[in-house]
Amino acid sequence: MTDTEDHRRLIVAGTGIAGLTAAIYAARSNNDPLVLEGDEPGGQLTLTSEVENYPGFPEGISGPDLINEMKAQAEQFGSDLKHGVVENVDDSERPFRVELTNGDVYTCDAFIAASGASARTLGIPGEDDLMGYGVSTCATCDGAFFRGEDMLVVGGGDAAMEEAHFLTKFANKVYIAHRREEFRAEDYWIDKVQKKVESGEIEIMRNTEVLEMHGSPEDGVDHVTLARNDAGHPSEKLDDDETEVSDFDVGAVFIAIGHTPNTDYLEDTGVELDETGYIVAKGGKGGGQTATDVPGLFGAGDVVDYHYQQAVTAAGMGCKAAIDADDYLEDLPENEETEAAAEAADD
Amino acid sequence: MTDTEDHRRLIVAGTGIAGLTAAIYAARSNNDPLVLEGDEPGGQLTLTSEVENYPGFPEGISGPDLINEMKAQAEQFGSDLKHGVVENVDDSERPFRVELTNGDVYTCDAFIAASGASARTLGIPGEDDLMGYGVSTCATCDGAFFRGEDMLVVGGGDAAMEEAHFLTKFANKVYIAHRREEFRAEDYWIDKVQKKVESGEIEIMRNTEVLEMHGSPEDGVDHVTLARNDAGHPSEKLDDDETEVSDFDVGAVFIAIGHTPNTDYLEDTGVELDETGYIVAKGGKGGGQTATDVPGLFGAGDVVDYHYQQAVTAAGMGCKAAIDADDYLEDLPENEETEAAAEAADD
Repeated sequence: MTDTEDHRRLIVAGTGIAGLTAAIYAARSNNDPLVLEGDEPGGQLTLTSEVENYPGFPEGISGPDLINEMKAQAEQFGSDLKHGVVENVDDSERPFRVELTNGDVYTCDAFIAASGASARTLGIPGEDDLMGYGVSTCATCDGAFFRGEDMLVVGGGDAAMEEAHFLTKFANKVYIAHRREEFRAEDYWIDKVQKKVESGEIEIMRNTEVLEMHGSPEDGVDHVTLARNDAGHPSEKLDDDETEVSDFDVGAVFIAIGHTPNTDYLEDTGVELDETGYIVAKGGKGGGQTATDVPGLFGAGDVVDYHYQQAVTAAGMGCKAAIDADDYLEDLPENEETEAAAEAADD
Repeated sequence: MTDTEDHRRLIVAGTGIAGLTAAIYAARSNNDPLVLEGDEPGGQLTLTSEVENYPGFPEGISGPDLINEMKAQAEQFGSDLKHGVVENVDDSERPFRVELTNGDVYTCDAFIAASGASARTLGIPGEDDLMGYGVSTCATCDGAFFRGEDMLVVGGGDAAMEEAHFLTKFANKVYIAHRREEFRAEDYWIDKVQKKVESGEIEIMRNTEVLEMHGSPEDGVDHVTLARNDAGHPSEKLDDDETEVSDFDVGAVFIAIGHTPNTDYLEDTGVELDETGYIVAKGGKGGGQTATDVPGLFGAGDVVDYHYQQAVTAAGMGCKAAIDADDYLEDLPENEETEAAAEAADD
């Protein structure tokens, strides 16, 4: 060990809903968690202005407020929250060796990966300013706020089709802007959307990209600037005579161009990741549902769940991960030795 | 159809955390849920005086208050809550036919079983009065309230061993009272408890039963009356000279003599139940985790989960069930026909 290493019983990577719930439970189980707050403190929920569907808050609660309440709760029971982005986890030795991007190194007996997934965004003017005020990366979270409005979904994959389909419940009309002619989505979703196109609830704009979003945090989205070129990828062909640029009125924009689970730091471990980087957790019945292929390394929230992705499902999985980690830690044979060593060192 | 039948798109059985969370999500998805409040409105959480580990409430919230908030939230989005205990679900025809114990009959396109599990209790004097005030059926929920106290766990199965083991984190000493000589628990748990016996953290009282609990809601449990007879089952041998009756001081009593999932009404359906009556849900990755063997019939909360059994894990599963049911309902081919028939009937 070098002098810079600090040993912890349990490290939780991430301070979104899953990480904070794991922290609450882990602290209450006397596992003294170090909770690492990464580049997006609070996770994706902080992008949602009003959370209406987290059970227990009939008046709704803002995403940042809910996160702050959970953070206070985690700290109250003894969680140690620190800023830190995990660069690498070395599972070839025990305790695990956890390297942060700032060079700090920790060791730990158990590790919960709750580092979430980041929604991809377009990176165009107006997008950042209007995020949470009419621009959203989560139809399930925010669709109901824009009942009766025209809504624009950006994307051509399963998520875009699913969100567009879901939003027909609320929208006056849903528009889908996709930068190419062909959709990446499964036929299943394309067929479902096609039915809504036939019923007039959805309109598809192919070979179309959003160049800019207009509006204000006070009044939300007013309109967007679109570019269209039948050859696809119009934003790369703005000087082309064939490219048409126009304004388009919409009340909300849903960006559904995918999420990237934040699991790069697990690539060199024995943890199975699926082709898009999601952690494959054990699942099933009974205990150990959040276990990975690496004993002592657990996954919770959007690093595992590519389907439901709700605040309360992430919370549920964070709780399970803390209970699974506690079971694991209680069973560690080296536990007593480590404690004995620590006590001996104290003498 | 008889005149007494009422058709609903979705019925949710149960108004505990799982049922109410399913109701919140289902109502927001325009599935117009009928939510049946059974014999234990609010479910097991109403037995817990203070919930400290439900994420979002750093000051804690009482179990009944949390349930009431969720109920208000479910009703606000359009859930229809009614008292009713399900007697039987007939899955041999579609829509499902749901018979209540009061004779009412509903039909529905989808059904979420969230009817929970009921903790078995001893049925002895003092138990009801002190439930939630030092007497508990959930060590994970309530153990931390009695730090430094002597605690008594009643039972001899896995749950009793697990709770006793868990409570050593908080207790001055944990006592286990078991009415027989032999434990039903797995060796795994007996071994773990035995280690704690050797370290002096647990003491086992075999062939011992609690006859009465003494104390007050204000001051909690003061002491219990125990009976002991080496032949086992002492409460059935109170006139036996070999039976010793004595008072025993403890600060908290945890009853861990098992739970019974409330799934009797599913026995004649195609839903797979395990040997103790828990619903076997599909689990796994991606969508449909709450699906059962019967398409359109979903399970959430303590009817499925025999391991974690936390408020937030039940909430997470309730959310998943509502999303799974919504996916199922959206795909129903007869949906459009039903809607068309309803519209025709309105003309």
